[in-house]
Amino acid sequence: MATGDIVLGENQYGKAQCRLVRVTRPSTGSGGGPGSGGEHWIEDLTVTSQLRGDFEACHTEGDNSQVVATDTQKNTMYAHAKEHGIGSPEEFLIRLGRHFVDGFDWVTGGRWEAEQHGWQRIVVDGQPHDHSFVRTGQETRTAVVQVVDGRTHIISGLTDCTVLKSTGSEFHGFPRDRYTTLQETDDRILATSVTARWRYAQLPTDFTATYESVRATMLSTFASLHSLALQQTLFAMGKAVLEQHDEIAEIKFSMPNKHHFLVDLEPFGLDNPGEVFFAADRPYGLIQATVQRDGIAPEPAAWASVAGFC
Amino acid sequence: MATGDIVLGENQYGKAQCRLVRVTRPSTGSGGGPGSGGEHWIEDLTVTSQLRGDFEACHTEGDNSQVVATDTQKNTMYAHAKEHGIGSPEEFLIRLGRHFVDGFDWVTGGRWEAEQHGWQRIVVDGQPHDHSFVRTGQETRTAVVQVVDGRTHIISGLTDCTVLKSTGSEFHGFPRDRYTTLQETDDRILATSVTARWRYAQLPTDFTATYESVRATMLSTFASLHSLALQQTLFAMGKAVLEQHDEIAEIKFSMPNKHHFLVDLEPFGLDNPGEVFFAADRPYGLIQATVQRDGIAPEPAAWASVAGFC
Amino acid sequence: MATGDIVLGENQYGKAQCRLVRVTRPSTGSGGGPGSGGEHWIEDLTVTSQLRGDFEACHTEGDNSQVVATDTQKNTMYAHAKEHGIGSPEEFLIRLGRHFVDGFDWVTGGRWEAEQHGWQRIVVDGQPHDHSFVRTGQETRTAVVQVVDGRTHIISGLTDCTVLKSTGSEFHGFPRDRYTTLQETDDRILATSVTARWRYAQLPTDFTATYESVRATMLSTFASLHSLALQQTLFAMGKAVLEQHDEIAEIKFSMPNKHHFLVDLEPFGLDNPGEVFFAADRPYGLIQATVQRDGIAPEPAAWASVAGFC
Amino acid sequence: MATGDIVLGENQYGKAQCRLVRVTRPSTGSGGGPGSGGEHWIEDLTVTSQLRGDFEACHTEGDNSQVVATDTQKNTMYAHAKEHGIGSPEEFLIRLGRHFVDGFDWVTGGRWEAEQHGWQRIVVDGQPHDHSFVRTGQETRTAVVQVVDGRTHIISGLTDCTVLKSTGSEFHGFPRDRYTTLQETDDRILATSVTARWRYAQLPTDFTATYESVRATMLSTFASLHSLALQQTLFAMGKAVLEQHDEIAEIKFSMPNKHHFLVDLEPFGLDNPGEVFFAADRPYGLIQATVQRDGIAPEPAAWASVAGFC
Repeated sequence: MATGDIVLGENQYGKAQCRLVRVTRPSTGSGGGPGSGGEHWIEDLTVTSQLRGDFEACHTEGDNSQVVATDTQKNTMYAHAKEHGIGSPEEFLIRLGRHFVDGFDWVTGGRWEAEQHGWQRIVVDGQPHDHSFVRTGQETRTAVVQVVDGRTHIISGLTDCTVLKSTGSEFHGFPRDRYTTLQETDDRILATSVTARWRYAQLPTDFTATYESVRATMLSTFASLHSLALQQTLFAMGKAVLEQHDEIAEIKFSMPNKHHFLVDLEPFGLDNPGEVFFAADRPYGLIQATVQRDGIAPEPAAWASVAGFC
Repeated sequence: MATGDIVLGENQYGKAQCRLVRVTRPSTGSGGGPGSGGEHWIEDLTVTSQLRGDFEACHTEGDNSQVVATDTQKNTMYAHAKEHGIGSPEEFLIRLGRHFVDGFDWVTGGRWEAEQHGWQRIVVDGQPHDHSFVRTGQETRTAVVQVVDGRTHIISGLTDCTVLKSTGSEFHGFPRDRYTTLQETDDRILATSVTARWRYAQLPTDFTATYESVRATMLSTFASLHSLALQQTLFAMGKAVLEQHDEIAEIKFSMPNKHHFLVDLEPFGLDNPGEVFFAADRPYGLIQATVQRDGIAPEPAAWASVAGFC
Repeated sequence: MATGDIVLGENQYGKAQCRLVRVTRPSTGSGGGPGSGGEHWIEDLTVTSQLRGDFEACHTEGDNSQVVATDTQKNTMYAHAKEHGIGSPEEFLIRLGRHFVDGFDWVTGGRWEAEQHGWQRIVVDGQPHDHSFVRTGQETRTAVVQVVDGRTHIISGLTDCTVLKSTGSEFHGFPRDRYTTLQETDDRILATSVTARWRYAQLPTDFTATYESVRATMLSTFASLHSLALQQTLFAMGKAVLEQHDEIAEIKFSMPNKHHFLVDLEPFGLDNPGEVFFAADRPYGLIQATVQRDGIAPEPAAWASVAGFC
Repeated sequence: MATGDIVLGENQYGKAQCRLVRVTRPSTGSGGGPGSGGEHWIEDLTVTSQLRGDFEACHTEGDNSQVVATDTQKNTMYAHAKEHGIGSPEEFLIRLGRHFVDGFDWVTGGRWEAEQHGWQRIVVDGQPHDHSFVRTGQETRTAVVQVVDGRTHIISGLTDCTVLKSTGSEFHGFPRDRYTTLQETDDRILATSVTARWRYAQLPTDFTATYESVRATMLSTFASLHSLALQQTLFAMGKAVLEQHDEIAEIKFSMPNKHHFLVDLEPFGLDNPGEVFFAADRPYGLIQATVQRDGIAPEPAAWASVAGFC
């Protein structure tokens, strides 16, 4: 075959997984906060910044004159956290992106990502403490902001939200071929760890309020639906979110089917009517799907490099 | 040097990390449970069983006639979960241990360990759901039961309980030598992930109630104490637990000092009065200590093979 | 805003991370193998299968009549490993994909992925053993096969190949702004963990031979190039691969800059001319780029859902 | 019950998991090294230092006047790596321990631990490169040094050395009770990840040469022995090590039985004579034992706080 010139294709670079904790202290003289006026607030993020633009000379010649150092990208995050606060991961990333794209002629876009880790106040004598917290560990909030061709794309989400139904789940009616041995069931444990990411039709007034509402809707739908397949549960969760949130255009899910196998206790002379299960690690089912409003224009640039989605 | 015969020393074997989920369903005809009578309850454990005794012929000859298969140990767990329920990890392990030690002449003891993973009910329309749960993720409850020379030793505990104070922590007055560069501070973030294990002077009537109380005491002490050193916080947490729990003889802690470094923003013309921090992964401080009642007899056999304690 | 109907978008599902080990034993009567004729060969894969097609009724109605169970997908892998062997991860996945797309009318495509784990023979008395192996642990070979619109796309690769140069790496000449504090250096440690994925212009006659050659080329280029930036090293590695492999159309890299910071020993009265380093975990630089032949047609479908690339 | 005073028990503290990379460069004017004289050598360790002694006032009063800061312990490691080199993890830790115990009156002992990560030279044009390396990933070398009551205890070892035999392993003749369902087998895959730790009767002249020899002996014994139980393999490995190393008093192993289950292909009309296996993650068998010279005095202080051994 004829070999053409060898050239640089798509590229991006930056600093990954900067651990950033922002403490907001009570303002002097004012008080503020729900209680005594002495509350601290903490925001705990893991942030990645990556730039796109004209970095060809660096790749081909080792010429760094346009390479905004990844160390500089990191410093910028910490300085911005001081100067402008966080607010929400989405707003923080949008400001970061604007800084780099506006500040350097040859930076035409980029990708900024954050995970937010949850904390709640420790309760002492029935009262939430002013400045002591315990990690919630229940799920991680996520955000990805990309600037592409002058447009800013925002994807909000969550990951590692593990849920389980001990009944109210069936699976049967699937096709049987030469390789099918799975038995049908009308009562099983259904467990998954929800990763969800949603794109906006129009920006919400409050990203955090939207987040809390989407999360609650997903959980209550998971709980309420009598499930005939994890796919059906996933679709119902997405549909409920879209019905309640006009501002969301589409939502993507990646949901492992965390198998809980009923243990066969018959050899020991015991029945096992849905009581004792072996929770398996690998392999696991993996269900991924998008739920969207009919007729929306696809936005592949918004989803490029958002990990783990079809 | 003279080389003596080569012989088998201490040994134990079994099945590690059996994932066991037990669903307790509403009993027919009765109702039961706090609400509608239809509540399910779930218990989610990772269990390890190891036997000690006369297994020499297996090691030296490959003679398995006394080797209770690790697969059999696993089966026994699942069958016991059905026949006798869980109740608490401690009670479950005690029953398992008794089964093996009583059932096989040559099994003289062993070690049984469990981690219990927390779940809470999903809230739907303001009500906790009957059979749908979300993983709490906040900490893992642990238990180790050992049978040694006819005695049963029980160690209860928790791990991965991550807490943080955004102020109320100082560190100064430490000695300075040739290798000391650390600056003194009278205001820092104090964060740790608590692993605690406690041994009983007498068995509690309710392991789970004791667990919840110990956990709450540790958290509120962490929150309330103005800390001059993580060691001081650790000791205060242990002391508070022992003061409130006559049934506990000693408690051991392993607490990493999860460093949060104040970011130097001066090069950017910004001050940083305790607001923006870099949360480091490694290295970390590691503080380990026992808090105990004066004059208690040591029980090394209870602590042998309990990971991560001095 | 007007809310349109809510519909199912892109979706795929299957079984993830099936751990599959295939032993090839000496054929009876023949001998075979390099040595005594008794050699075993092992292939160790972690395989994921996901199907795409018409699964709408399952999502919207819980109708599973077209849902090839994920358990069936798993069984099919194991049966195929017996019937047809592995050969290479690429060939194994291609056969799997053909099985599902040809076998079910409503399955129009899918995604099959494998990681291959390396083993080498244990040496006994200077001779490689017939049937005993030690894990190499040096890197993981990867493959992704996708069938989209009747075309089969194949991406080969490797991940977790960690390399380090203790000199021969500089970094300077980068722009300095308000947030830049990084010092320039003309001698640093350069370390990275290479993830690389390549797409073919035409299929190689031997995927495994190509893999070995690409790997060796990447390592020797990393070693030989005096580096002015990790980007430059990355591009040189890709260029060398394309120059030696006409059958490869493009190669994508994701390479963390695993920072090794020179420890400041001056406070202790010691110099440190490139001798003692602190190896940091997070944050890390992250360099991602494509090296390609000029003018090739882009194949976004081949790269969709290949994790971790821009 | 009577509650006595609450006091501090055993304790230790320090800095954990310091990532330390030491580059040894060619000495000017000398040449040195096997080849061109320009070779670099790298040593890559993760080191933990913990002190024991009189730290009571810190725990009970927050008085840090005797608390050698964990940051100082870290600095000392890096400075020692420059001043005295590494040599072997054991020698490095011995020097560290002596520094702290000799340097501070109230430090009576401590615990120092290291993991050493392997690197090998990248081969370029058939020659090992001077200063470019690839991580071997095959196992991690370990060392624990403890100073207790004026004596120095040294434990050498390795971990994560994963080995597999595709035949030459049986398991049968085990007792059958009500809970036994496991079938006997006279041909199975035997796989484990070896963790081994050994204590010396007298110090070797070269820790690294001993390490390499012990490792090779363990691997070749694993390969050669026709195994009737993993316990038998373990004992044979230990016995071979002790027979060849008079300087070793005892060796402890922790070896998971990494189950490889033969897949039942009969439902698909296929036989499976030891060819296709499912490699399971959890649960796993866990075999732990000591192999020792008869009549040696036990040294519990040497083994205290060495993780994962009975």
